[in-house]
Amino acid sequence: MKIAKHISKLSSYVPGEQPTSTKVIKLNTNENPYPPSPLCDKALKSFDAAKLRLYPDPDCTKLRKAIAKICNAREECVFVGNGSDEILSLVARAFVEDNEAIGSLDPSYSLYKTIAAIRNVQWKGISSLGESLSPKKKSDAPVSLFLLTNPNAPTGEWREPSEIATFAKNFPGIVLVDEAYADFARGNTMELATSPSNTNIITMRTLSKSYSLAGLRVGYCVGPQKLIAALYKIKDSYNIDAVAQALALAAVTDQSWMQKNAQRVIATRKRFTSALIERGWDVIPSETNFVFAKPPAKNKAEDVFTALKKEGIFVRYFKGAKTKDRLRITIGTDSQMKKLINATEKLISR
Amino acid sequence: MKIAKHISKLSSYVPGEQPTSTKVIKLNTNENPYPPSPLCDKALKSFDAAKLRLYPDPDCTKLRKAIAKICNAREECVFVGNGSDEILSLVARAFVEDNEAIGSLDPSYSLYKTIAAIRNVQWKGISSLGESLSPKKKSDAPVSLFLLTNPNAPTGEWREPSEIATFAKNFPGIVLVDEAYADFARGNTMELATSPSNTNIITMRTLSKSYSLAGLRVGYCVGPQKLIAALYKIKDSYNIDAVAQALALAAVTDQSWMQKNAQRVIATRKRFTSALIERGWDVIPSETNFVFAKPPAKNKAEDVFTALKKEGIFVRYFKGAKTKDRLRITIGTDSQMKKLINATEKLISR
Repeated sequence: MKIAKHISKLSSYVPGEQPTSTKVIKLNTNENPYPPSPLCDKALKSFDAAKLRLYPDPDCTKLRKAIAKICNAREECVFVGNGSDEILSLVARAFVEDNEAIGSLDPSYSLYKTIAAIRNVQWKGISSLGESLSPKKKSDAPVSLFLLTNPNAPTGEWREPSEIATFAKNFPGIVLVDEAYADFARGNTMELATSPSNTNIITMRTLSKSYSLAGLRVGYCVGPQKLIAALYKIKDSYNIDAVAQALALAAVTDQSWMQKNAQRVIATRKRFTSALIERGWDVIPSETNFVFAKPPAKNKAEDVFTALKKEGIFVRYFKGAKTKDRLRITIGTDSQMKKLINATEKLISR
Repeated sequence: MKIAKHISKLSSYVPGEQPTSTKVIKLNTNENPYPPSPLCDKALKSFDAAKLRLYPDPDCTKLRKAIAKICNAREECVFVGNGSDEILSLVARAFVEDNEAIGSLDPSYSLYKTIAAIRNVQWKGISSLGESLSPKKKSDAPVSLFLLTNPNAPTGEWREPSEIATFAKNFPGIVLVDEAYADFARGNTMELATSPSNTNIITMRTLSKSYSLAGLRVGYCVGPQKLIAALYKIKDSYNIDAVAQALALAAVTDQSWMQKNAQRVIATRKRFTSALIERGWDVIPSETNFVFAKPPAKNKAEDVFTALKKEGIFVRYFKGAKTKDRLRITIGTDSQMKKLINATEKLISR
């Protein structure tokens, strides 16, 4: 029995808890508090299960067309994945040689480090896009793929597309902009990704957050045709099942449903941010469906996390020097956020 | 813009055509001619789309338990993948170092070569399990993972589990037995995979063939807990969507439906094989839901493939020295096979 060395020593990514109890107020994995478009339910109920005996469309043709239209992109420039997760795993293989490295901001989505470890290449974190990525030691591999969450997680911070464009222009490899939260932000990089002059920017989106379809596993990315074609070459033959294709198509068709829910979340985020600040929390201005907030002095974030959990309110806590002082709290309904505020008032000393 | 060299030069695997016309008699991708269990349709219609706002169970707990029960295995020894395809991609990363190779029979499932190319390692084919896998030249990498389809595709040939056990005993790496077609065969290797003394055999199954769920993308594998744990470490966090988990659970719960359909396919396979032999075809005895058959002398397989396609009957033709003389024909309904026989009688000269 033999497991590859780099896999043996790997610490796997730990996703947020998925409690089975429905009584829990679940604000730990940035899920949307509102249901997906009614068109999804309609697509589900009208799907003919007998058709599942046949393989699904390997290229997600209809879905790809619909996404291309929404993004104002050519179909050939759109790739659909089994969640953004699959796309991250594929770009790590398509755009990184064995002796190269993957870069990202630090802190950012902690999965990126794991993606590099699974790919058996180095990972390099920088604090800002201005910081140099150049190898400093002889043993440092050059970064050929940069994974850039914008707005960033877990901080919620927003970077202007112009800053990203400048960064990409000076970067010799591929920049994947992970826009999981873009529908809750003031802008996005889709115009950069679809520009005919673009050679190295790929913009990635997910249906998990703004479309309320975390349970379905559909993400997509848009970029230069040659890069997208490389992903199609190495994906599993039939990576998206037929039911998921039908439901995702229904969801993206109903843009107004998604946008209405995103606006509700944004409105709640504003109210919740104000409520926290009034109570002495430090909150980084967020352009996402969560906030990254530091409890008032003397209250350790980890203690508040544990105390809230005991009250049946799940938020996310990340150990690590740059993240340990804060909690990442998903924006739920107004009623859920009020319950959280009430719970903290009992728990927290001012 | 930079694509990794081994990906740039890669020829991707081409799955069988998925014609959109429903008039076609589709015998080219080994799909089941009968629908999945009615329990799948029930699970689909009763699924609450609102639940899709939440992430799915990352570990497929209920499905894993049900599969473990069917296989007489411990839950910890079962891995569920987004189709067998995902499992193949994962084992190529978990059990192969950068300087090692992947082996398989030749001919066998042609995707295996592509899996090795994507993993950027050598592929080594052998004609029989008795043939040596040892490196012959200094540049040959040692084979650390052997992908063994049993019954084999596209030949349909069956190998006794005892032969596979002997091979695995003498092989220093991991043997993955791809049992996509095992439910149509006289036996299987599940007892080898679940044996407490097993250290290097993993048995893989799919719901695509015998369960009539090619459209759903669910496969699983069973083997030593340490190996299965390595796959869980490197899989995407949420690799199976919530709908697929529910439908797969429904399908595996209804064993009698699957077995009844498998028996119908086997009965048709026997009748169809006899009909071909009577008409001068050479048919390799098949233990699968397809036959690999050579048309009577003077009729080139590729010509018959093309002529049948013109008649709206799709079968599969593989170029290549070892496969070019035969057609791989999926077993459909008796009525479909009669239509194929009738068409060949017009097309083929004896």
